[in-house]
Amino acid sequence: MGPFPVVSLMVGSVVLSMAPDEHFLIESINSTGTNATGTLIDTESRDAQRVLIASTLTFLVGILQVIFGVLQIGFIVRYLADPLVGGFTTAAAFQVLVSQLKIVLNISTKNYNGVLSIIYTLIETFEKIGTTNIADLIAGLLTIFVCMVVKELNDRFKHKIPIPIPIEVIVTIVATGISYAADLEKKYNAGIVKSIPRGFLPPEPPKVSLFSQMIAASFSIAIVAYAIAVSVGKVYATKYDYAIDGNQEFIAFGISNIFSGAFSCFVATTALSRTAVQESTGGKTQVAGIISAGIVLISIVALGKLLEPLQKSVLAAVVIANLKGMFMQVFDVPRLWRQNKVDAMIWVFTCIASIVLGLDLGLLAGLLFGLLTVVLRVQFPSWGGFGNIPGTDIYKKVKDYKNVIEPEGVKILKFASPIFYANIDGLKSSLKSTVGFDAVKVYNKRLKALRKIQKLIKKGKLKATKNGIISEPGINNEAFETDEDPEDNQDLQVPTKEVEIQVDWNSELPVKVNIPKVPIHSLILDFGAVTFLDIVAVRSIKTIIKEFERIDVRVYFASYQDNLISQLERSAFFDDTVRKDMFFLTVHDAVLYIRNQMTYSDNKDPIFEKIALMQESKEPIEFTETSRPGDELDVQEEAMRRLAS
Amino acid sequence: MGPFPVVSLMVGSVVLSMAPDEHFLIESINSTGTNATGTLIDTESRDAQRVLIASTLTFLVGILQVIFGVLQIGFIVRYLADPLVGGFTTAAAFQVLVSQLKIVLNISTKNYNGVLSIIYTLIETFEKIGTTNIADLIAGLLTIFVCMVVKELNDRFKHKIPIPIPIEVIVTIVATGISYAADLEKKYNAGIVKSIPRGFLPPEPPKVSLFSQMIAASFSIAIVAYAIAVSVGKVYATKYDYAIDGNQEFIAFGISNIFSGAFSCFVATTALSRTAVQESTGGKTQVAGIISAGIVLISIVALGKLLEPLQKSVLAAVVIANLKGMFMQVFDVPRLWRQNKVDAMIWVFTCIASIVLGLDLGLLAGLLFGLLTVVLRVQFPSWGGFGNIPGTDIYKKVKDYKNVIEPEGVKILKFASPIFYANIDGLKSSLKSTVGFDAVKVYNKRLKALRKIQKLIKKGKLKATKNGIISEPGINNEAFETDEDPEDNQDLQVPTKEVEIQVDWNSELPVKVNIPKVPIHSLILDFGAVTFLDIVAVRSIKTIIKEFERIDVRVYFASYQDNLISQLERSAFFDDTVRKDMFFLTVHDAVLYIRNQMTYSDNKDPIFEKIALMQESKEPIEFTETSRPGDELDVQEEAMRRLAS
Repeated sequence: MGPFPVVSLMVGSVVLSMAPDEHFLIESINSTGTNATGTLIDTESRDAQRVLIASTLTFLVGILQVIFGVLQIGFIVRYLADPLVGGFTTAAAFQVLVSQLKIVLNISTKNYNGVLSIIYTLIETFEKIGTTNIADLIAGLLTIFVCMVVKELNDRFKHKIPIPIPIEVIVTIVATGISYAADLEKKYNAGIVKSIPRGFLPPEPPKVSLFSQMIAASFSIAIVAYAIAVSVGKVYATKYDYAIDGNQEFIAFGISNIFSGAFSCFVATTALSRTAVQESTGGKTQVAGIISAGIVLISIVALGKLLEPLQKSVLAAVVIANLKGMFMQVFDVPRLWRQNKVDAMIWVFTCIASIVLGLDLGLLAGLLFGLLTVVLRVQFPSWGGFGNIPGTDIYKKVKDYKNVIEPEGVKILKFASPIFYANIDGLKSSLKSTVGFDAVKVYNKRLKALRKIQKLIKKGKLKATKNGIISEPGINNEAFETDEDPEDNQDLQVPTKEVEIQVDWNSELPVKVNIPKVPIHSLILDFGAVTFLDIVAVRSIKTIIKEFERIDVRVYFASYQDNLISQLERSAFFDDTVRKDMFFLTVHDAVLYIRNQMTYSDNKDPIFEKIALMQESKEPIEFTETSRPGDELDVQEEAMRRLAS
Repeated sequence: MGPFPVVSLMVGSVVLSMAPDEHFLIESINSTGTNATGTLIDTESRDAQRVLIASTLTFLVGILQVIFGVLQIGFIVRYLADPLVGGFTTAAAFQVLVSQLKIVLNISTKNYNGVLSIIYTLIETFEKIGTTNIADLIAGLLTIFVCMVVKELNDRFKHKIPIPIPIEVIVTIVATGISYAADLEKKYNAGIVKSIPRGFLPPEPPKVSLFSQMIAASFSIAIVAYAIAVSVGKVYATKYDYAIDGNQEFIAFGISNIFSGAFSCFVATTALSRTAVQESTGGKTQVAGIISAGIVLISIVALGKLLEPLQKSVLAAVVIANLKGMFMQVFDVPRLWRQNKVDAMIWVFTCIASIVLGLDLGLLAGLLFGLLTVVLRVQFPSWGGFGNIPGTDIYKKVKDYKNVIEPEGVKILKFASPIFYANIDGLKSSLKSTVGFDAVKVYNKRLKALRKIQKLIKKGKLKATKNGIISEPGINNEAFETDEDPEDNQDLQVPTKEVEIQVDWNSELPVKVNIPKVPIHSLILDFGAVTFLDIVAVRSIKTIIKEFERIDVRVYFASYQDNLISQLERSAFFDDTVRKDMFFLTVHDAVLYIRNQMTYSDNKDPIFEKIALMQESKEPIEFTETSRPGDELDVQEEAMRRLAS
């Protein structure tokens, strides 16, 4: 356990925004004689306040982590996708860069807060760039250069040298020596560390009154700190073959943060490099932890004092040099864009949001954006009309393959996603585009045509015969043909009292009666990827079935998931017209069944009964009332009527 | 176009919270002589302020709607699922009930604001219930009773009476008459309407300074108003066969709201009942609109004055009586719960959130909750080991069916959802549970075993022979058996210089070498419902393949979506070991291929090469280095290392 760069950044941004330098300005007593700005900063009370804020934050983070652990929401870590973490940490590195830049330049800026604060800081830094302290700048640039070169060498020759060169330590010692020897503070007005408090602070209760100001930030910190620790833990768990209980980790980190928060400590997460060192040197028990803690103890008590002449710009430069790895992540983005555009968008969105909104809100925004992309990817699935690969029972998308044959009079739609409220419109429009017509419009036009035929019959301008409707001579009917297939009908027509007629909607009707043709008799929905349906989807699919039924197209479902049937049963999907025999194990089974049905069925159009009725009664029949099923209204319309009642 | 109940409620709640009665208290001048409370409300300036707020809100809603339209985000309406709308409108009805209750009782309460305000109002109403004005209460209760009874009759006999009885109008007229005749205001101190301004207000620019206070609310109002109008529009579009352009509607409503907002008008959406009346009476062009506007004009100019003696409690009671329909929606919840628990949860969550947080934040919370349920439903799919139904090419879940047979040495996992960052852990654990072991742990144990064998060979306690490893006499090896199948090996062993040996991991090894058995040689992942993969999933699946490869289990993919291959190609999925011949059109194809492979293959275990090497060199071999593929590290670990660099 220990501090971790990203978490340190997040804590730092809270501390800086809650205890900026301006809060601690004191009258210039001009004791040093060199300070020309006129005001001094009361560093002692400022640092005390900052320690208090950090330890209070640690305490609050601990409380939140225990709560998360008790509520068993360790699963939240799953939502931190890799691209999100990449964008977030790059933004964090940018935040640090900006905050360290002014230290390297030894420029004092206002401390901005909240949305866009980092941008304002950056602007002010550039505005005041004229006040740069050259000694500090040179020391900083040199440090950055040396650190980066040595780190590069470390990386390149990592197999040849036993341990990496600890360049940060070396640079710090050397810079301290130079600063002390050359008295940079006095001669060049360089900003030095000046005082490092030794020993330990007494235990101090957290300042509860600050909780409300830092709740949003501690939320993010609690989750990020936990996420890092658990990911590292998982790596070693796999290696050494044990299991990690995520919620137990949450509670453990929470309790230790609560405890250490009361002793002016810093938020603990995993100390990755120390863990790696301990593991590779064979440390296995808590004794290894005690030894390394002992060494840290010695450094705190004895060595701090020696670093006091060190320039702050050197420290800042060491931080900047170490940000390289995080900034290098930017080069992932083009590769990510090639591989997966959505993931690249998550990266960029999270990065920009974290820079603009700050790290806490940015993380939340990135998280929500990530979830939204999942919804969108589910919502806009691939779909298409499918056809048979001849000689097989395999069905593939008609658009993608040559020689794929759609069975005659059958359309097969595969809508490759769960169906729920947000994509039910998509299902409907893909259905329209696959079958090539709108079932409701066709039905309405048929109704109109029926009324027109009724009128024409009443006026005596049309005659209903056994073989179809023929128009009386003298009427312009060049487009009209009688039913071409009389033998089919003769078998079926039982002589009754009324003259039965047949309207073949797909043959040509008198020009005055214009109706759309329905080129299919069956529609198969491939439900292979429909893993769930919500209540809106169930109702809408039922409506779709009835709409197609009205224009004599039967709907079938194929390759459904097993649990779908029970779900549909619960949702009151099945009734007299929507039955379970619409469901087939595979698309091919459905097609075979349909082919079978078509061979032996009479293919009788229920509409001619209605026309017969027309002839007999000679009264206008209200089609709309009798032929509209009760629940055929769109679900939304129902809801609307109720709302406005 | 016109006002709509839900939108009116939402506007009303903004107006009330921004211009509560307390802001307009004036010194009691006691001019009426009856007012005993000591303070009076400056109704005139209050109402002027409220009108200004409402029209400013209308203006802002208009601007937002135009922006939404231009940005083409009409699709947002899709996210308003039915259960969400149900819960939201019920909460809105509850808000209205509470706000009208105090008017019926003629109790004055403070105006609360923000989170939980409706609860505070309710509590204060009950606390002050002693100050109820009996005359107002009786009038209110009577009105509610009469309205509800007549509406019930209207509903029951709707087919027998030509038009519904306009009971609200009748009640209002009668109540005005009674109040005027009995002088309820003077005698019983009843709260009456008192003044209805006649005519029109002059155009007034919106108060831009109020925008920031009402931006959240106008956001919700803009979307809800649009959603209602579009849903109603769609119903008539279907009926009369035309198409609606959602974004055009957005811009149209936006412009009309901007315009009318400058003339002290109210947010316009659809006027559902007027639309229904106009449509049923045959109105088709804008002329019908002009006529109905003319009648409204006459009412405004002439009739307003007559209603001044009306008790406000009667008006509030009319509102309450009309809320019945919305409250009846509560009875949907048990049905919804039976049909689909998730949808029921969306309903309840949105309702509670809208009551607790207020309508604007509640709608947002409900919307996010709805999207989260989609993510969760995708994230936790059904999965299971599949087996063959004998004599068919159909594979079904082993747990759900009797007589389903798993092919020998083959495990088939169907994970029925897209795979992305949030469920990749779920895939891994379902994989473990299906195959019955953890591939990484098995590999690590095998490595340990190899090391142990190496040690034993070096000590001379084990001998590697052609038929396997045998232990030297004198060592406890009761559990050890030589390879039972020597003829299989003899065909394969080409005599070479080194003594080749074979480790059959599934036979018993010397007791000192304890390794887990791998009972399978092939793993098939049924990708039938995997409609997309994100970059995390691609990397993790590649890792899974390699992990299984290491323990000599081949991974195959079956019934994949066509677009998956190109997606995987882009994501750098394929390489020398992960090849496209792992992909099969159906599970059965994969099983047939595997069966074929097993019959003809030598089933050669690559590990015995390593042991041979051991024998030859007599040097310790570093297994970890050679056998670990470079990219085998968990993706998360990679990221971590980079972060902490």
